[in-house]
Amino acid sequence: MPRIEKISELTTMRLSIYLRCLKEMAAEGAASVSSDTLAKRFHLNSAQIRKDLANFGEFGVRGVGYNIEQLSEHLVRILGLDREHQVGIIGAGRLGMALTDYYGFRQTNFTVTALFDTDKTKVGRTYGEVAILDISEIKRAVSDGLIDVAVIAVPAPFAQEALDIVVEAGVKAVMNFAPVPLKAPSDVKVKSIDLTIALESLSYFLATKNGSE
Amino acid sequence: MPRIEKISELTTMRLSIYLRCLKEMAAEGAASVSSDTLAKRFHLNSAQIRKDLANFGEFGVRGVGYNIEQLSEHLVRILGLDREHQVGIIGAGRLGMALTDYYGFRQTNFTVTALFDTDKTKVGRTYGEVAILDISEIKRAVSDGLIDVAVIAVPAPFAQEALDIVVEAGVKAVMNFAPVPLKAPSDVKVKSIDLTIALESLSYFLATKNGSE
Repeated sequence: MPRIEKISELTTMRLSIYLRCLKEMAAEGAASVSSDTLAKRFHLNSAQIRKDLANFGEFGVRGVGYNIEQLSEHLVRILGLDREHQVGIIGAGRLGMALTDYYGFRQTNFTVTALFDTDKTKVGRTYGEVAILDISEIKRAVSDGLIDVAVIAVPAPFAQEALDIVVEAGVKAVMNFAPVPLKAPSDVKVKSIDLTIALESLSYFLATKNGSE
Repeated sequence: MPRIEKISELTTMRLSIYLRCLKEMAAEGAASVSSDTLAKRFHLNSAQIRKDLANFGEFGVRGVGYNIEQLSEHLVRILGLDREHQVGIIGAGRLGMALTDYYGFRQTNFTVTALFDTDKTKVGRTYGEVAILDISEIKRAVSDGLIDVAVIAVPAPFAQEALDIVVEAGVKAVMNFAPVPLKAPSDVKVKSIDLTIALESLSYFLATKNGSE
């Protein structure tokens, strides 16, 4: 297996986007694509595409472009999408259940394998085919290999406590939906989904729109 | 009112982040801050901060830094956070209800004022204090000023249809949670929350982590 170089988070986000674009072009039957075509079609920056991909070796052929299938396979390996991950969702409330149903998970290498809660009326039941376990069982779930990724879907005031519990249990990758900053050890990756930033982008759009009318 | 210049979406996201950092420092009692201190403390780029803020006039005083209160007020105005927006959530399922409860909305200038669905068993009821209306009522809701922002929280196969309906009703700003690309007219802003990109970033982290062990 080739050694995978550490790259920045913004780069991985761009690689994810390139992969999505390549899949779309493959579905349309294309076999190769140039960085210029990719850039124009998906509103990307062609110099940035060449720079990002050059980090991982020579994929492009001058005048021909990238082989879509080979490049896709390579991006899948770089992003680690060829390995399965099991997700435990902390909080079996509406958000936790909505995430369990989330169609996006099914498009990736992540599978929701358990929900965790402290509410005794929920623990022991299932949601769909996913068991709702007591939060105290998370340590065993991690050591048994039932989960290796956690999603924090509890109300904001309980988010840090939930994170501390999953970190203590040995989880190294966490997605956080609580709109509060969380503290984690440096060997644990916490990816926060902050909807307020997206809302503020809409707010700006509406402000300039109304301002220009 | 000063004219608001059009700036890129990445810039507005950074302005949102700066505003959050300034609020945190204000809460700790700080009155002014330099771009270098801001950058160090919140892992930002100080040259980028100066460049972004220079777009909107001179805020900093050399050797003293930015006045936190003045700069915050200015960012609030730039981002349009001093205007209230009313949000209609399309889809009164688990995700729609989870978003209605979302604590992040309460921290911003967005208020959820209505849920919309086609399910006759839901329409006419309320969730918390928010009415669930028939999707056919959205046009009137927009013209009455009840909503000016829509959130698409329906399953992926129905997302484009839902978007078409809100656009037809006159909504110009949309947040989309369905993990599918949507087409909208150029005068409508659609901000998609794609969790698969966040998942792939975690996937990459786990791949390199395991790879380096």
